[in-house]
Order: sequence, then structure tokens, then C-alpha cells
Amino acid sequence: MSGDTKKENATPDLTQAATFKRWTPVSLRFSDQDSLGHINNVAYAAYVEQARVALIDALLRNRGVEIDYLLANVNIDYRREMHYPGTVDVGAKLIKIGTKSITTGYGLFRDGENVATAGSVNVFFDPKTSKSVAIPDELRRILEDELANG
Amino acid sequence: MSGDTKKENATPDLTQAATFKRWTPVSLRFSDQDSLGHINNVAYAAYVEQARVALIDALLRNRGVEIDYLLANVNIDYRREMHYPGTVDVGAKLIKIGTKSITTGYGLFRDGENVATAGSVNVFFDPKTSKSVAIPDELRRILEDELANG
Amino acid sequence: MSGDTKKENATPDLTQAATFKRWTPVSLRFSDQDSLGHINNVAYAAYVEQARVALIDALLRNRGVEIDYLLANVNIDYRREMHYPGTVDVGAKLIKIGTKSITTGYGLFRDGENVATAGSVNVFFDPKTSKSVAIPDELRRILEDELANG
Amino acid sequence: MSGDTKKENATPDLTQAATFKRWTPVSLRFSDQDSLGHINNVAYAAYVEQARVALIDALLRNRGVEIDYLLANVNIDYRREMHYPGTVDVGAKLIKIGTKSITTGYGLFRDGENVATAGSVNVFFDPKTSKSVAIPDELRRILEDELANG
Repeated sequence: MSGDTKKENATPDLTQAATFKRWTPVSLRFSDQDSLGHINNVAYAAYVEQARVALIDALLRNRGVEIDYLLANVNIDYRREMHYPGTVDVGAKLIKIGTKSITTGYGLFRDGENVATAGSVNVFFDPKTSKSVAIPDELRRILEDELANG
Repeated sequence: MSGDTKKENATPDLTQAATFKRWTPVSLRFSDQDSLGHINNVAYAAYVEQARVALIDALLRNRGVEIDYLLANVNIDYRREMHYPGTVDVGAKLIKIGTKSITTGYGLFRDGENVATAGSVNVFFDPKTSKSVAIPDELRRILEDELANG
Repeated sequence: MSGDTKKENATPDLTQAATFKRWTPVSLRFSDQDSLGHINNVAYAAYVEQARVALIDALLRNRGVEIDYLLANVNIDYRREMHYPGTVDVGAKLIKIGTKSITTGYGLFRDGENVATAGSVNVFFDPKTSKSVAIPDELRRILEDELANG
Repeated sequence: MSGDTKKENATPDLTQAATFKRWTPVSLRFSDQDSLGHINNVAYAAYVEQARVALIDALLRNRGVEIDYLLANVNIDYRREMHYPGTVDVGAKLIKIGTKSITTGYGLFRDGENVATAGSVNVFFDPKTSKSVAIPDELRRILEDELANG
């Protein structure tokens, strides 16, 4: 399992902005607020999605990799309240390559302060059979390069 | 223009539940609220959309009419604050048949009390040319029947 | 009515970016899309709200004017489809000062191209009596200055 | 720690409708869909929130318990695609009582079929000090009763 250990390394600290090279800014919306006067938790899931789509597009679509994938899990830790108006900066990082899936990690920052962290699992599948598939070699090379340098 | 006058009749009173035969109930969501503690105006547009899609599906898709249409206008009058939790009942009514478009009207009711009214215009178009098209005869008959009885 | 005519002038052309001095950029979200692959109409209402809140805050809160207001109407004309990802720039302009209300206008632009226009009416009211109130002199001066120069 | 073991028992199977006594139906919205033609993952977070708010209100507010709490974590497993229109039924269950927090579990069902499961952690706190607080005895008795019978 030394290969796996090497690939995963220690889990990166998602509360630190220095952990991330890929960033997606998202403008907070008035309608993201809830009756308590702060940004509602559901909106955070949309912020994470913005960064996840940008990360996966960068790894797959923008390099011409043709494969389907679905979202299997989203896990959000809420660390600080956030208030409208302004921008939340979402850092995204590939943190694990599985046999058929990838795990990505996110840090949400407001004016440099960490307000939430999140993880997400996407599974690759074959649209013809609707079954999950092992990550193809070409994509695995891209992912390993991202894991090492992204 | 007497034909048009006849088709349109007087504009129906959208603040009255008795105006509507077609109803779509929509559950209010905690995340629909805004920082003022009531349902945010943007959510009303989603409630109107629920009723509009149901109305148009009833007139078109469920009868096998194949035509594309786009949304050209939405106009919402906010009449009363609305609070979570609960259900908003949205009445929908075809109120005008144009040459290439239809106008629909909506009444939003909470526990029988009118909280908002809305109007909407949809334009029919040909996806091949991306140009608006006159309402085909088959559809016009369906619409005229709805206008008279719906 | 010459005073009124002077105040309102001709209705500004909301499809022209040159009409607007006040701008609010809003990032489009993946979740703003609908099943047709373009930005859903409901999201436009949130974009307009961003610009409306910014405009009203600039005129009221940021100048220490203490008055309550509610949203009475939103009216959106959808002119072009818009696609994720990217930013929509929303221009906002005060277009009419009534006795107890203001009318504001909006132009939504994507990469400089107008995709929608909107209008909105806000009514001022006294929270103690829950009744609408005439615009106080101090606020009226601010609004008239905005109407002339904003 | 046998007391704790007893309180938590085995983790209930959230994919089974029989696990739940508390249910919240939520109407799917047209605008919940994304560009892939199915319900977007962000909307699931709103469905879970509906059931979480209903559960916590049933345990706290409706019994006059005065305590503040915040949302610390939401974790959603997406198991099946879901399509508009229709209703999703969300089962909610208290699954763990901690010192200062509770863990709740959710099962989302569409026409009786499990489409997702979720967990959530809420932490109790004192609004005066903004610090987390141990669950008061009165509330702990309510929670233990819910854990045994809910």
C-alpha cells in the first residue's frame, strides 16, 4: 500500500488558503441569506459546486477527456458565519485518486478567513452500461500529475 | 378587432381564488426566506414557474403538441408578506392568445389569502430557424378551448 | 404636470449599457442552469435583486436615511439566453420618483450584450403603522439628485 | 462508556423508509433541475434542511425550550438521480446525542425509492458568550426520549 500512501500523503489542511492553487470566486447573493441574517447553509453547497465544476472541467473537458462522472458525496463543515454582501473565494484541490472515483477538497474563505471546508466524491461511469468504471490510464496520468502539483 | 376583444374579455381578477381552475401547491422552504424573516421575492418567481410549467405541459406536452416556446416576460405584484413554513397554492390561467404568443396569469394564495399576482408571456418559435412562429391551428384550438373553459 | 414630466423625462433605454452608471457584477452559478442547458429565469430575479439592493443601499443606508420600504413589483423582459459559466453585469438606474414609491430600471449584460431588462417598484412605509408613507423631504432631495445625475 | 453505546445503538439504516417516523414532503421545483436534466445536488441540501428544521422545531421550539444552536456539518450521499416533477419525502431521525451537539440522519425517498441519505451535526451554544454549551438537562431528557422512540 506504499503507492497509495504516497499518492494520498497526509490529508491537506483545507482551512489554510496556502493549501490551494485553484480558486473560484463566487459573489454572495442577497437571496443566499436566511431568516437569521447570515448566509444559509444551502448556498455553501452551491459555492462548493462552482469550484468542483471548475476543477473537473480543468482536468477533463479542457483536455478533451471523454468520460462521464456523477456526484456521490458532498460533506461540508461550517466553521464561521458569513454575511452578505461580498465574495467567497473557494479553493479546490484533488486529494485522492481511487480505482473508480476521485475525492476533492475545498476551503471557503471570506476576506482571507476560512469559513467552511468541504469534501466531495465523484465516481466515473460508462453512460452506455450505467455502471461505474475504472479510471482510464490517460485520465489517471492527468490526475496523478494534478495530485502531485495541483 | 372584435374577435380579439372577445377572446380576451375583461382581464380576470387574479387576486380571487375563484378565478382559477388549475392549481399547483408548492412547499415553502426554509432557504426561501431572506434576512428580513419573510419569503424572499426571488422564490415567488420559482412558485410562478411551477404553475406555468404545469399549465403549459397540460396544454402542450400532455396532448402531444410538438412546438418550442420561450419565456419572454415575468411580472410579479407582491401584495402581502409570506412566512415559512407552509404551502403556497398557485392558481394559473390562460388570459390571452396572441399571434405568436400567449399571456398567462397567476394568483398566489397562502391559507386562502392572496399574497401575490403575476403575469407571464411565452413566445412560440421554430428551433430550426430560431425565429418566432405563428401559433399552429391545432394548438390554437386547444388554447381557445382553454381560454373559454380553463 | 410639467414638473413630473421633467422628473421622469423619457424612459431610458435599458437595453443600452451607456444608460447605466451603477453596476453590480454577479457570478453565474452551475445551479442557476435549468434542464434546457441555459440560465433559468428565476435566477435573473436574483441578479436584479443584487443590483436593486446595491442601488437602494447606496441611496438610503449609506447616507443614514432611516426609512422602511417593501418590494411591490418586479417585471423582467427576457431578451436572450444566457449560459454558464461567467458573469452577468447588472446596470441599475432610478427612473421615477412617485409620491410614496420609486421605480428603478435594470439592464443585464453578458460580455457587453444585453440579455434582459427589468423594472421594479419599491414603496416606502412606516413600520409602526405598517402603512405606506410619502417620501420624506430629505430622501426626496437625494432621489432627485440621483434621478438627475445617476 | 456503555451508556453512550446504549444511546447510539447501531447506526440506523437510512436507506430504509421503515427507519423513520418523522417525515417532511418537499415539492420538487423546475428550477431545482440542472443542465443534465435531473435534480441538482444543491437542491438536496435544501430538502434535508426542510426535514432538519422540522425535526429540531418539534424537539425544541414546540416544547418551549429556549436554546440557540448552529449547523456544524452536512454530509449527503447521492444514491440515485431524481427527476422533476413530483415530491421528495424526507425522513428524519435523531441518531446521536453528544455532550454539546446532536447528530441527525435523513433518508430521501421518491415514490418509495431511496435516492439519497444524509447526516447533520448541530451544536448548541450560548448567544451571550457565543460559546458552545453542554445540552441542558431538560433538553437532554427530551432528546433521550426521542432517541428511544422517535
